[in-house]
Amino acid sequence: MTEISEAGTKSKTPVVVIVGGGFAGLAAARSLKKAPVRVVLIDRSNHHLFQPLLYQVATSGLAPADIAQPIRSILRDQANVEVYLDEVMKIDTADRLVVTADLTFRYDYLILACGARHSYFGKDEWEQYAPGLKTLNDAISIRHRILAAFEVAEKASDPEERKQATTFIIVGGGPTGVEMAGAISELARFTLKKDFRHINSADARVILIEAAPRVLPVFDPSLSEKALQQLRQLHVDVRLNAKVTKVTEDYVEVDGVPIPTRTVIWAAGNVASPLGKQLGVETDRQGRVVVNPDLGIPGHPEVFVVGDMAFAKRANGAPVPGVSPAALQGGYHVAENIIRILKGEPTQPFHYFDKGSMATIGRNAAVADLHVVKFGGLFAWLAWVFVHLYFLIGFKNRVRVFFGWVFSYWTYSKGSRLIQVQPKDGALLHNPPADPLPPQK
Amino acid sequence: MTEISEAGTKSKTPVVVIVGGGFAGLAAARSLKKAPVRVVLIDRSNHHLFQPLLYQVATSGLAPADIAQPIRSILRDQANVEVYLDEVMKIDTADRLVVTADLTFRYDYLILACGARHSYFGKDEWEQYAPGLKTLNDAISIRHRILAAFEVAEKASDPEERKQATTFIIVGGGPTGVEMAGAISELARFTLKKDFRHINSADARVILIEAAPRVLPVFDPSLSEKALQQLRQLHVDVRLNAKVTKVTEDYVEVDGVPIPTRTVIWAAGNVASPLGKQLGVETDRQGRVVVNPDLGIPGHPEVFVVGDMAFAKRANGAPVPGVSPAALQGGYHVAENIIRILKGEPTQPFHYFDKGSMATIGRNAAVADLHVVKFGGLFAWLAWVFVHLYFLIGFKNRVRVFFGWVFSYWTYSKGSRLIQVQPKDGALLHNPPADPLPPQK
Repeated sequence: MTEISEAGTKSKTPVVVIVGGGFAGLAAARSLKKAPVRVVLIDRSNHHLFQPLLYQVATSGLAPADIAQPIRSILRDQANVEVYLDEVMKIDTADRLVVTADLTFRYDYLILACGARHSYFGKDEWEQYAPGLKTLNDAISIRHRILAAFEVAEKASDPEERKQATTFIIVGGGPTGVEMAGAISELARFTLKKDFRHINSADARVILIEAAPRVLPVFDPSLSEKALQQLRQLHVDVRLNAKVTKVTEDYVEVDGVPIPTRTVIWAAGNVASPLGKQLGVETDRQGRVVVNPDLGIPGHPEVFVVGDMAFAKRANGAPVPGVSPAALQGGYHVAENIIRILKGEPTQPFHYFDKGSMATIGRNAAVADLHVVKFGGLFAWLAWVFVHLYFLIGFKNRVRVFFGWVFSYWTYSKGSRLIQVQPKDGALLHNPPADPLPPQK
Repeated sequence: MTEISEAGTKSKTPVVVIVGGGFAGLAAARSLKKAPVRVVLIDRSNHHLFQPLLYQVATSGLAPADIAQPIRSILRDQANVEVYLDEVMKIDTADRLVVTADLTFRYDYLILACGARHSYFGKDEWEQYAPGLKTLNDAISIRHRILAAFEVAEKASDPEERKQATTFIIVGGGPTGVEMAGAISELARFTLKKDFRHINSADARVILIEAAPRVLPVFDPSLSEKALQQLRQLHVDVRLNAKVTKVTEDYVEVDGVPIPTRTVIWAAGNVASPLGKQLGVETDRQGRVVVNPDLGIPGHPEVFVVGDMAFAKRANGAPVPGVSPAALQGGYHVAENIIRILKGEPTQPFHYFDKGSMATIGRNAAVADLHVVKFGGLFAWLAWVFVHLYFLIGFKNRVRVFFGWVFSYWTYSKGSRLIQVQPKDGALLHNPPADPLPPQK
């Protein structure tokens, strides 16, 4: 066996292995900067992702590099951290081992912060037609699908086929769904408006499907109402109390009624990383690990689970939500608890401080719930822009993104409308139209 | 058959079909703005690419969106142009048809501007190990390989394997090869310097192989000498009069001597688009169509070939070089010749106006040959920056790229160091090391 730590032989420095370089994992690594530990951070991608802005990459507003930064480069000046680009295959809590595709690591403390993927409620066959939005690859693939849909419509001669190609269905009315619906509608109605000759891109239909009676169900009802109004102003067809019953290549069935479409985006459900199941402790319906108040797991005080992968309860009994501020706070807290253990002190329970929630719907349109004050419209949008820029890691990205936003705001142009696949890949065109082009005009 | 033009039936407006949205095709389309024609521009990707800066995407200096812009968006305000994202399969000069994967177009005038791909001199099996650099996909794939090589080295325990992983071989000492060699060396020696714990990224070997006795063979010999000095200052191992005799997954053979490496970049040769062969006229050894002085083809005065796909002779008998200014000028010229034909005037021969050549080697390092004056060093670098920014299409890109360069210049950081593939794709790790990690320090 390979021992990264050499613990107990040459060196007495305890090894903290962190799996995942998202908000929680990165916060934990940074908080251990001055602790007398060696930190090993393992992630299967080489970059930290600012996930709240991922929908902007999927809708051509931002380039991938604007919201992602190499984990190595973020942690380059922290001498006690090693970063490994690798995929964790197995966790052995009895022998305190983390086994990756290439290496085996022995840990003294383990922090699991592997996040979640989208869940199809047992209908995994829907994924190929209705991709979710969690990684840069997801976003680039969705961007291709959206842009390619307009290219297909421009070439189609059959009006039904054209309508199908320019129908976009978003499943799930949470923040991601609302943001995607607003952004696709703006893309179609403003950005692409003058780009085509045979179609009017503004005729595109954007349909948002939500099973609950309101959008943004975790927000205050007054803000759900504001968001609904703003979505309707952007001509998004919002269907509440509606349930997707089938997804195929050609259509989506909503409460039994098929809607022809080729572009479906899934924003409806999450399931935690499957690594949680390997710990041998209780998990909830979404696969999240049920953690102790200090975010440790029962029976293994040296193992912590944090972020979207953990099911933690707040003082009032409600679960800590799967949002980035909770992941950040959890990451810091776990690092502090490890430092407490090293000092011989007892760990402390985690208290999530909820600063509020925001969602953006489009140019000037957003909703913000800061508890003391709830508001929508331009002011919420400006608050959203400010908060998101403030938390974007890296000065360069911040200035680039700000510049890009100001420019897009003035011009409605979106700079990242690139399709990198080629038609022969088959990813672009489903069926060549039989009798394609109508005479122009 | 589908007729896009309806020429001769309902409408008398002549149809100009342009294949390719690179410098030549785009220049031709724009020059036809006020001409009484309908322009159909077909490209298999949706974006125009600023190819002179592609090596910056391949070496993490720029993001893909910085140097690419949707062709539709460039031509959105030109009412007589239609853009199709499609791949041309067949050209029928007898019936004046262009057949794509999806559609058939009838033309009155045809402009072929499909460019070139890299050529392996009959050794096509080398391509999988030694990718060339022509498209955004090529650049992203090379960026992944370069970054992944350092990740592999960081995990390797065998010093030979580590050395192999951090050996980068560039085949071909023309502008692309010189630029790639300089940029990889800077990446290794400055940008990544503090990112790793088990390797010193600055130990990477960058080997540039050129069959001729000097780099930049088309430049003035004094500038080749300057470029060589600058490359050596950047610790690039330049091998002149050297020939690649074999390329495999594990090594490159140079004049019979194997050099272990897993990262090879091919910048050695070009072959024109295979569509040229379908015209039934003479092509040269590189597959370029031998054109008349007016850039038309023998026997078909309505068909023009331009850019890297054409073999045109200058007044002094030398061929027009395959560079972007020649493509731009050729595109304008062909459009003007079509306008002349429509007016009943004779076409004019093409005269290439050679403004000079430039190549950049790194921070402060470049060479420029403006005929009246030849220079290297910082001033050439500033001239290079200015010229490339000036010709970047789109205000937003220009400002973004400028900002990115200034930032990189100050900090040596490179903002686009993203690996979007995941390790399990197999693209990243060739062989997991048998006994991977040495004890730290």
